Formats: sequence, C-alpha cells, structure tokens
Amino acid sequence: MTQDKKTERYLRRKALREEKLRLEEESRERAATEQRKLDEKYMRMAIRLARRAEESGDVPIGCVIVHDGKVIGRGYNRRNRDRSTLMHAEIIAIRKASRVLGDWRLEDCTLYVTLEPCQMCAGAIVQARIPTVVIGCMSPKSGCAGSVINLLEMDGFNHKAEVRRGICEEETSEMLSSFFKRLRTTD
Amino acid sequence: MTQDKKTERYLRRKALREEKLRLEEESRERAATEQRKLDEKYMRMAIRLARRAEESGDVPIGCVIVHDGKVIGRGYNRRNRDRSTLMHAEIIAIRKASRVLGDWRLEDCTLYVTLEPCQMCAGAIVQARIPTVVIGCMSPKSGCAGSVINLLEMDGFNHKAEVRRGICEEETSEMLSSFFKRLRTTD
Repeated sequence: MTQDKKTERYLRRKALREEKLRLEEESRERAATEQRKLDEKYMRMAIRLARRAEESGDVPIGCVIVHDGKVIGRGYNRRNRDRSTLMHAEIIAIRKASRVLGDWRLEDCTLYVTLEPCQMCAGAIVQARIPTVVIGCMSPKSGCAGSVINLLEMDGFNHKAEVRRGICEEETSEMLSSFFKRLRTTD
Repeated sequence: MTQDKKTERYLRRKALREEKLRLEEESRERAATEQRKLDEKYMRMAIRLARRAEESGDVPIGCVIVHDGKVIGRGYNRRNRDRSTLMHAEIIAIRKASRVLGDWRLEDCTLYVTLEPCQMCAGAIVQARIPTVVIGCMSPKSGCAGSVINLLEMDGFNHKAEVRRGICEEETSEMLSSFFKRLRTTD
C-alpha cells in the first residue's frame, strides 16, 4: 500500500469515527430534549393540581405518578382540609397508583412533584420503590431530597431513586412564594 | 453558740439535706418504674395488634397512640393484605388518631410501636409532631430511629421526638424472628 492510500484510509476512518460520535451526541441531545419536554408536560399537570390545594388554604403542592405513559396517580396537598398530616400530595398519589397497579411496589413509575418532598413523602417513595422522581423547586429548610437530607439517594437503604430537579422551577417556586405573600397580607 | 451546738446544727442540716436527696431519688425511681409499667402495658397492646398482621402473611408490627391515658389510634401492618406500601402500622394509627383529635398535629400523644420505624413512618411521626415515641426492638438494617439514620431526633427539622427504646424488647424481637423462621421453612 502506498503512503497516500494509507493516509487516505486513515482520514476516511477518522471522519467515520467523528461522524459516529457526532450522531451519538445528537441522539443524546435529542433524547434529553424529549425527556425535558415530557417532564415539563407532567410537571404542568402537577402544577394544575397544586392550584386546587389553595382553595382550602393548603400550601399549593401537586403530584402525578406516570406508568407506561399513563397517569395512574394524582394528588394535591389536603393537610388542612382533611386535618391529617398524611394527606400530602405524594401520599395521595402513591395510594391511588398502588390501587391501579394492585401492588405496593410502584416499579417502572415516575413521580412528579412540584416541591421537594418532606421526610415522610421521600420515605414513602423509597418504600414504594419508585425508580424516578422529578422535582419542580427545592425546599431549602425542610426538603429531604437533597436540602436538609437526601433520603431518595441514600446508600444505607435497599432502594435508591434517580432524581431530576428544577423542572418548571420558576413557575413552581413563584406559585409558592405568591401563596405565602397572600397569606401574610390577609393575616 | 457553743461549739457543740454548732456541730449539732450542722449535723442536723446535713441529715436533712441527705434525706431530701434520698426522697428525690426515690421519687425519680418510682416515676421511672411507673413509666416503665405504663410503657409495657401499651407495648403489649401493640404486640397483640402485631399478631393480627401475621394472619395475612404480613410482617407482625403493631402500633398504638395514647393521648391523656386513652388509646386514640391503633394499627397493624397490612402492606400485603391491602397491597399498599402506605399501610404500615404507624401510618394507620396516625390516621385514626388525627381523626379522633380532629387535627393533623398529634401533640401530647405517645406512639408505641413494636419495631423501629422505617423512613416513611419516622417521617410521618415528625410531620405529625408526635412528642414521644416508644420502641420495642430495633431494626438494624432499615430502622430510621437510630439504626441506619435517626429521623426522630434530627437537628435539621422543626420537630424532634423523645424516644424510649427496648420496651418488651425480647418479646417484640422474638415475635419477628419466629415469623421469619416460619416463612423460611414454609418456602
């Protein structure tokens, strides 16, 4: 083989390798964009649910659980309305999803919640073995998915969830701050 | 005052001080014994509830919540029976107690549970602001009141519970180990 041919072959292979990497990168980006769009779609459902909590003076927090592209659990915060600390959005959605699947394990499900979960709800997510959790905004003083503590990704337990944070962050955060602002002015 | 009188007065005061300390110590011991008896009484109720979980193949865990000397919440593990991860003994008892008191806050309540709570139940206890928790035996691999983590006495949260451990320890621990032993032999 002449030197020219060797060089030519080398360059062709290099171009092919680069093209392959470029396509892979593009495909990854496309998948991430698709995922983001999907996450935003379900988070907006959770936001609409959250708005219903406000009607009873409850902090606006909403949650949906998705399985195989279908919403199988919905919930919004009803702690004040129902006078029960168990009536957080996530717990209500988990209860409904378990009923739909007929199983206490919620494998292959994604849980969307507008605010970082508390210790009880993060605990319920781990107990139900939900594999993926998508969070709107974080709760720096009481959140248990990275703020005060991270129960969703703890090594000590027999289940860990994958967590995506900051989906529709501005909207979920603004919804809460305007709720508390109104609360202060009406007091 | 003669030296004799001074000595006599000193000795009398010393005897009085010692008597006072002895009485205080006795009173503390009596209170601790009373508390222990009371704890054992309610823990035995929780054990009787736990036995009912076994009937449906659920891990035997029972819970009672006491307010003003009255049991206002009872629960036993129904996770398998009800196919819901939320149906832990503590959650069921908290739900009932909230209904009785008409409040999501369970202040002035004591929760008795045969096994150290998981992350979800420990979280629910903190969320419900239950001030005192009494535990039968510990759960070294998954307990969240001191074993894997201690959610009941964490500085980061706005509520901490007082925890008493090891009440009817032998009986609560034996109940679990014989359940798992039977499970292995019938498999």
